[in-house]
Amino acid sequence: MEMNKVGEFHFTTESYLLDFKGQTTIPMIGNYLLHAASVHAEDRGFGYSDMSKRNAAWVLSRLAIEMKEYPRMSEQVTLYTWVEEVGRLFTNRSFELVNSKGETLGYARSIWAAIDIDTRRPTLLDVAGLSEYLTDRPNPPIDQPGKIIPVESTTQGELYRVRYSDLDVNGHLNSIKYMEHLLDLFDIELFRQKNISRFEIAYQAEGKYGMELSLHSSEVATDKYAMAICHEGKAICRAAVGWQ
Amino acid sequence: MEMNKVGEFHFTTESYLLDFKGQTTIPMIGNYLLHAASVHAEDRGFGYSDMSKRNAAWVLSRLAIEMKEYPRMSEQVTLYTWVEEVGRLFTNRSFELVNSKGETLGYARSIWAAIDIDTRRPTLLDVAGLSEYLTDRPNPPIDQPGKIIPVESTTQGELYRVRYSDLDVNGHLNSIKYMEHLLDLFDIELFRQKNISRFEIAYQAEGKYGMELSLHSSEVATDKYAMAICHEGKAICRAAVGWQ
Repeated sequence: MEMNKVGEFHFTTESYLLDFKGQTTIPMIGNYLLHAASVHAEDRGFGYSDMSKRNAAWVLSRLAIEMKEYPRMSEQVTLYTWVEEVGRLFTNRSFELVNSKGETLGYARSIWAAIDIDTRRPTLLDVAGLSEYLTDRPNPPIDQPGKIIPVESTTQGELYRVRYSDLDVNGHLNSIKYMEHLLDLFDIELFRQKNISRFEIAYQAEGKYGMELSLHSSEVATDKYAMAICHEGKAICRAAVGWQ
Repeated sequence: MEMNKVGEFHFTTESYLLDFKGQTTIPMIGNYLLHAASVHAEDRGFGYSDMSKRNAAWVLSRLAIEMKEYPRMSEQVTLYTWVEEVGRLFTNRSFELVNSKGETLGYARSIWAAIDIDTRRPTLLDVAGLSEYLTDRPNPPIDQPGKIIPVESTTQGELYRVRYSDLDVNGHLNSIKYMEHLLDLFDIELFRQKNISRFEIAYQAEGKYGMELSLHSSEVATDKYAMAICHEGKAICRAAVGWQ
């Protein structure tokens, strides 16, 4: 029973999805996490189709990923995911990535809300139902995603218009594409010399097709960056990235 | 033995990788094809690592994909791939995509060359070795990828600079990203009303980090487009796209 609460997923990295260093990228790890989250929820009766029946949908609010080591070419990775906490409006989901030797590659923590499909406003969670899946598994030893310093008013943004390949199945800017566009702001030299040790993102509003966005980044401490994606001067997303 | 020549791969579509119509995209299908091609070759002793030992690497020269139907949410797809023909400088590889009912979703045909890793010039193929994997399986009932009308001198290009997320494991513009950037030139209305029935691409030169590219598209017949990606006025890639 306890085993059933923790979802276990296996994937093998694909060479066409690695970056120029031969490492899995943060957006690709994000994709694995979100896919595991949706299958884990679906298999336990609180996934996309169950939420649809209640006229609701899951929305990822915040996500923090910390990687000690990045999976490389043709590496087999096991991904564990479980419900960490359930509240009236938010639920926390945790992740652990493990290599084939059983060593932890990284952890992630995420915060989700449910919205009403028509009003796009937050709706109450089924606290009792979701709580059945709470486990004794310890929380990942990384900080929860939290507040991020706004940098959009103090930096010059790079303009970007939302395109076809940015859209998800709901016609909004894909959660993964926010990450991709933000990482593209960093100079390639930084990728050559360092790795991202922590990537944290807070989703605040939905990007839509044709929307003109401005992408912002500022080094707020040594190797620590605060970032934002704005539309008409208002942040639709903030991110914090640590390099090591 | 005959079975062993044809590679069989299984994948399930992931919701975070579908487009706004809930369909697998051409770039994602391209990714599945290239991944299957590399594993099929690797498993039979002529993959990335075997080529590396001979100081050579595979280069995708041309690819044509024809889809009758696109895989949708959580659909299980079987992908077959096999060597269709082997020449001194080029080898042809075919693909068939099949749904869980055994119905063909689409076909693809591709042409590959091998290059010397240092000189980046074409190198002779091991014709005898590769020919061991030729099968009796019939060729896909779609045209081979061929010549594409140049449109770069008659159209205004859209500018694009190659970024971190565009790079593959060799530090060049990822084969899949060429597709993504080209498809983003189409108006979203076209995607709403039609599907791509045939996508064909010819890779001519390697895109590199920071390179400024111009992206071109022109409707050369009803629902048929010729496209190009250029650097300093010279095409590094051409594509032909048919809609239905």
